[in-house]
Amino acid sequence: MTAISPTDRATVRRLPKRGNYDRNTINAILDEGLICHVGFVVDGAPRVIPTGYVRIGDNLYIHGSPASAMLAVGGKPQEISITVTLIDGLVLARSAFHHSVNYRSVVIFGPAHVVESAAEKMEILKAFTDHMIPGRWADARKPTEPELKGTKVLCVPIIEASAKIRTGPPIDDKEDYELSMWAGVLPLATVAGTPIADPDLRAGIEVPSYLKEYPVSAKQAG
Amino acid sequence: MTAISPTDRATVRRLPKRGNYDRNTINAILDEGLICHVGFVVDGAPRVIPTGYVRIGDNLYIHGSPASAMLAVGGKPQEISITVTLIDGLVLARSAFHHSVNYRSVVIFGPAHVVESAAEKMEILKAFTDHMIPGRWADARKPTEPELKGTKVLCVPIIEASAKIRTGPPIDDKEDYELSMWAGVLPLATVAGTPIADPDLRAGIEVPSYLKEYPVSAKQAG
Repeated sequence: MTAISPTDRATVRRLPKRGNYDRNTINAILDEGLICHVGFVVDGAPRVIPTGYVRIGDNLYIHGSPASAMLAVGGKPQEISITVTLIDGLVLARSAFHHSVNYRSVVIFGPAHVVESAAEKMEILKAFTDHMIPGRWADARKPTEPELKGTKVLCVPIIEASAKIRTGPPIDDKEDYELSMWAGVLPLATVAGTPIADPDLRAGIEVPSYLKEYPVSAKQAG
Repeated sequence: MTAISPTDRATVRRLPKRGNYDRNTINAILDEGLICHVGFVVDGAPRVIPTGYVRIGDNLYIHGSPASAMLAVGGKPQEISITVTLIDGLVLARSAFHHSVNYRSVVIFGPAHVVESAAEKMEILKAFTDHMIPGRWADARKPTEPELKGTKVLCVPIIEASAKIRTGPPIDDKEDYELSMWAGVLPLATVAGTPIADPDLRAGIEVPSYLKEYPVSAKQAG
């Protein structure tokens, strides 16, 4: 078990029992999610934008247009924060007060820096595509040099990070266990539907096997 | 159609065609989501935390423990931003470069203020509970006065807000439509599973009808 040494701001203070600093736990949540929410500061005010991401080793990568405000990191590293949240269920306690959500989330703080190397960017886009749809990269038309140049990639080392996890049944006040309403968990999961072909798809092209086998239980939006 | 007048920072600049300022569109996304991501600034650095929320009229409410850093709004309003993201599908273009995600998101900026009135807080917690699980409030043990006092509720008026939406098939470069790989959309949705009773549930209590009829198609985690 490789533990991350939490800094002050990466320490889970609210309900600290839910905090977890084990790198394997953090990596598993990052690998299961599809979308992160990136926080950054513009003119002193916070802004939060959803985007895709991929983890490679101990680094997290996001990418987008060089025109994106989110990616407006110049020569010097910029402080951003990245949060990935997986929702596992709704927790129905007997009391309204103790209703909760079962979830697994990761928060990463850190200075982000721009990835400049074209070869490295290509490797990251490969990992990004296969993180979203395992097996897709081999099929896709690969990025051209202008496309690579037109893609800004940011790297955030997973150093200041923590996971926060809630699992299990509701926790009610002792006297409430005598009450007669139902209590428990309503599980939620993200599932893939039937692939919808592009109306302009050439005739005779079958749905690829990696979509038929899409790992619905191992990928969650959020 | 009631349009919100977007301020500079609430204007969708990246891919402006995806921007939408219609209040009904924004409200529909907020009502369908379960979880928002709240951005706030601590010591000049951004922080992003997932939490539940509810919309009532033209206001959005979040709540939590008074000890939460996220809710550390004192006497004067604090700038926060709130983002709700619904993931509708993965968009498989022919080129890796044009892969995308179908989504509907709302970003709200604004000063948040604390709701002090106990009666108003009770109404908000009712709406919060029924937003998460329609019909649950009537069953739940209602908050006591100490519980109400121990719940901090923040209000963010939905004034500076915008929606951003992507729908439909991939958009590839013209020459790529001749390529022979599959292209289209893999729909994603959040679904509810079978309710799991609390192991300490008293014998003979049935799963309530509002869980059997949980609006899976009308609620999305994210």
